[in-house]
Amino acid sequence: MEWEETGVRSDRDYLDRLAEAAVVAGLNLARDQELIITAPVAALRFVRKVTEVAYRQGASVVTALLADEQLSCIRFKSASNASFDKAPLWLAEGLYQGFRSGAARLAIVGDDPTTLQSFDPARVNRLNNANTHAFASSLSLLANFRTNWSMVPCATPRWARAVFPGIPDQFALTKLEQALVEATRARDPDLTATWRRHSACLRQRASWLNEKRLEALSFRSSCTNLRVPLARGHRWLGGSAVAENGIEFIPNIPTEEVYTMPDARGVTGYVVSTRPLSYRGTTIEGMRLEFDEGRVVSVMAERGQAILEGLLNLDFGAGRLGEVALVPESSPISKTGILFFNTLLDENACSHLAFGQSLPACIEIGGSASADATAERGGNTSSVHVDWMIGSNDMDVDGLHGNGTVEPIMRRGEWADLISPD
Amino acid sequence: MEWEETGVRSDRDYLDRLAEAAVVAGLNLARDQELIITAPVAALRFVRKVTEVAYRQGASVVTALLADEQLSCIRFKSASNASFDKAPLWLAEGLYQGFRSGAARLAIVGDDPTTLQSFDPARVNRLNNANTHAFASSLSLLANFRTNWSMVPCATPRWARAVFPGIPDQFALTKLEQALVEATRARDPDLTATWRRHSACLRQRASWLNEKRLEALSFRSSCTNLRVPLARGHRWLGGSAVAENGIEFIPNIPTEEVYTMPDARGVTGYVVSTRPLSYRGTTIEGMRLEFDEGRVVSVMAERGQAILEGLLNLDFGAGRLGEVALVPESSPISKTGILFFNTLLDENACSHLAFGQSLPACIEIGGSASADATAERGGNTSSVHVDWMIGSNDMDVDGLHGNGTVEPIMRRGEWADLISPD
Repeated sequence: MEWEETGVRSDRDYLDRLAEAAVVAGLNLARDQELIITAPVAALRFVRKVTEVAYRQGASVVTALLADEQLSCIRFKSASNASFDKAPLWLAEGLYQGFRSGAARLAIVGDDPTTLQSFDPARVNRLNNANTHAFASSLSLLANFRTNWSMVPCATPRWARAVFPGIPDQFALTKLEQALVEATRARDPDLTATWRRHSACLRQRASWLNEKRLEALSFRSSCTNLRVPLARGHRWLGGSAVAENGIEFIPNIPTEEVYTMPDARGVTGYVVSTRPLSYRGTTIEGMRLEFDEGRVVSVMAERGQAILEGLLNLDFGAGRLGEVALVPESSPISKTGILFFNTLLDENACSHLAFGQSLPACIEIGGSASADATAERGGNTSSVHVDWMIGSNDMDVDGLHGNGTVEPIMRRGEWADLISPD
Repeated sequence: MEWEETGVRSDRDYLDRLAEAAVVAGLNLARDQELIITAPVAALRFVRKVTEVAYRQGASVVTALLADEQLSCIRFKSASNASFDKAPLWLAEGLYQGFRSGAARLAIVGDDPTTLQSFDPARVNRLNNANTHAFASSLSLLANFRTNWSMVPCATPRWARAVFPGIPDQFALTKLEQALVEATRARDPDLTATWRRHSACLRQRASWLNEKRLEALSFRSSCTNLRVPLARGHRWLGGSAVAENGIEFIPNIPTEEVYTMPDARGVTGYVVSTRPLSYRGTTIEGMRLEFDEGRVVSVMAERGQAILEGLLNLDFGAGRLGEVALVPESSPISKTGILFFNTLLDENACSHLAFGQSLPACIEIGGSASADATAERGGNTSSVHVDWMIGSNDMDVDGLHGNGTVEPIMRRGEWADLISPD
């Protein structure tokens, strides 16, 4: 059996390298800065490593908020109906104060994508809604790059079981760890330097796109034909970004994307998702959407349709696009051939779009732009930001110029300028 | 060897009964009330049981803040010197908002009493100081019974190792679980009813003392001679109390004490601690203190003197008494014969005093009394409240009346009115 051949011991030291990369390259944590970590309790060993690196970097206080998926399940099994409209406002307020007063934030990602799969989708939607609104103001500080933050994955047993079903748990965990070593480039001994170098490459790719000053992108494949106009004065970002506190940070490790702000008002055409979207403990698969002048006019999903509809109706902007991102099919994450059921990984395997909030840093007026100024250029406002994957190796992306000329950007899922002529 | 004889399997179901008793008898959680749980991550299994009971009782949102002692150790090993004056103010602010807006609070107690034993006491003191001041306002809401709260113990491996050193971990854990079954009376199948009945007995004992309208208590043993005047208009409490939200709750499970407010200004004499005080991961043992007119004029400890001095100097009230409590030597906790190195247990094995904040509910004007009105009657104000044990089976306690008469309250550590004449 396939998994028995991979019985080699996983490279456990990679967690040390990854912790270092997350704190130094990802957060670029400043001396005397506070750090708030959110993590599944199953990632406690990694939380300890990260905490140690953070204190060695001079962190003032490191606080870990450990979440337990079992507690979510217990709620769905035992709570009163009224509970599903409630969120811990005190914690949302606390986090808001924390980020506002300068704390950095590291999200350690390792959730079981199936946690809430078997529960009533209407209740799942109501609880998502309650939590989304409660935490909107603290998350908007992050979306606006008010402070430096990062996200990094850590293998956990339940996540591994969902990615590699049907094989014994310890083998599944080892396989997931090995896949994350590849995805995070953690074979490299100096992982911090690796991520800083790679970030520079992504910034270069973003510059290449910025110089083109495109008016729109056109995505075409056997099942997609979508025109995505770009926001006026948009800029492409990739790799590191600079927070309002002046700290240069890498928001996602791994990251393989360059991304910018679409003009949410003009998106038109049809598009099919090419990878399942794992959304807060449920999976949405086989999405087929039609857009007309920015609005979703038709929506279908082979799986998770009720959750998808709940998401799109969460608020006015939730059913419009806030981000467009390009990722070549040759990305190391795509090359693992693994579907991670986790957006941090899966969105870096292929080109994608995001519903909801757009990132103010993606237009030239930047993070200090008012919501009105951003909206006037096509920016979108929502209390969610959910990426979903549309890229594939039969997808072409064209850049459309204001004067009507068309320029190839990607061919068969790869950067057009990197494809050798033969 | 002694522990091999106790190789019987621990009664694991007691955790279910204890979870029920904590939520129903302890918190008396109201329908639609929010609950904030604090617990060591090693007690996660018990946290899940408590969460299930809470949701079944109609809780709106249950949030567990899971603490990991290893993270504290990592801080002491790796953090910069400046870190030890910092606390997570955002979390303190969040908790304050939570309690103020009506959330109940359950503290699950299971810390390793030796966590910080080997670290620099000066740094331990600075960190205690920073945390105490940061969380003072949220803890004062609890001291003032603004909301219903409770504390309940849960055996954890490291705590068990500290209580039963030198035996294999799994045996130590079983022994601690068995001891907690006894201490929490959890052999009784209807533990909620048991605790409500026991709470009524303690209220009865408090009434017996209240009727006496004593002016002071005198503690005497071979090594203690201490006069503790009681606050004017003091009242004895025991068992359940009533929070400002109208909910009757039992603040500690287990509880065996009746307690009231001393007049902090008049405490005079000398006193020796009879059990080690486990204080935030360190142990203070063999305390000898002399009081003159309320102030500590001489302090010695066989172990942990620097931590004790740090505690007493934390603020003006930290070195004065805020509580006096009577517990008979025959309490079930005392009868286990075990030193738990945990105040929730050890303070219920014998009579004790507390440094720091007095409980406003212990005078007749009650929780709504202003700090000034309480101080005028002898109440004490501090950002800490730390109980320490002085009772023993050779201790007599007399009640002193205003007219000079003396009445026996306890003899050889037992209630004087319950001792048979022969």
